[in-house]
Amino acid sequence: MNKTQWIPIVCLRVIAMVSTFVATVVMVTSHDSAKVLGMTFQAKYNNSPTLRYFVVVSIITTIYSLGALFVPPKKLGRHVLVLDLIVLSFLISSFSAAVGVGQLGKEGNSHAGWLPICGQVPKFCHHVTAALIAGFVAVIIYFLLIIYNLNNVLNLVAFKA
Amino acid sequence: MNKTQWIPIVCLRVIAMVSTFVATVVMVTSHDSAKVLGMTFQAKYNNSPTLRYFVVVSIITTIYSLGALFVPPKKLGRHVLVLDLIVLSFLISSFSAAVGVGQLGKEGNSHAGWLPICGQVPKFCHHVTAALIAGFVAVIIYFLLIIYNLNNVLNLVAFKA
Repeated sequence: MNKTQWIPIVCLRVIAMVSTFVATVVMVTSHDSAKVLGMTFQAKYNNSPTLRYFVVVSIITTIYSLGALFVPPKKLGRHVLVLDLIVLSFLISSFSAAVGVGQLGKEGNSHAGWLPICGQVPKFCHHVTAALIAGFVAVIIYFLLIIYNLNNVLNLVAFKA
Repeated sequence: MNKTQWIPIVCLRVIAMVSTFVATVVMVTSHDSAKVLGMTFQAKYNNSPTLRYFVVVSIITTIYSLGALFVPPKKLGRHVLVLDLIVLSFLISSFSAAVGVGQLGKEGNSHAGWLPICGQVPKFCHHVTAALIAGFVAVIIYFLLIIYNLNNVLNLVAFKA
């Protein structure tokens, strides 16, 4: 891999690392409370296993993206490509599950008798939405990173064929 | 691509196609009703946007997997690899979102005041669980398909280097 191919990879990894770091911080600091029928109701990310999963995946991706920056370009082989694919899979998984639950928080589901909660705890919902946007940026960046690496490899095949 | 590389790809695509077809049929036929406080309560997959999304992705993957079987081995280039990656992304996304919502159906979320519904509509929940298992099989198969194709391409690079 030459220098012109290496620079975009470093840039994409830095953007992904910053996005997942921001997603983690914004999600972890999401907190709001409301009084419903005289009882105080607390909304925190760790009340939901899905949002906890989102935070765990965001932290792991931040650490992985940082670590991958120190892999020398010549050692960027199939293992890194497969690890990137695994990281992308978990990013998509945690983002989609959190969107599914977030949509319920916003709209509720009248058939299941689940009322929306965002009207009562808007600060919490804004934080979750912002964290999901940062998570989506990380998904797109990892997708582009894999396509870019794949393209480099396939060009090499075409060039050597 | 030679014949020994082509046969595993055809087998994986057929398994993925059957899994997503089964996931679609099992999810679409999920239906149950219960009487709660004298009112009849209907549980259907199309009451949830997340489960509708799961069905749409399963149908598209079934059609795509069938279509991809007719692509001649020599034309299996980067476009098919990128399309496979997009299909895997949507499979993971729809599966994870449906698991997130399914977990709420099973366990509820006491903090948000969302009661579990599986006690009232067990037949519906069994169908959704079975569809999710079939969806998970499709995720694993598409993941293996991409790793296998990637491995073939990378071996070609190593061989020609």
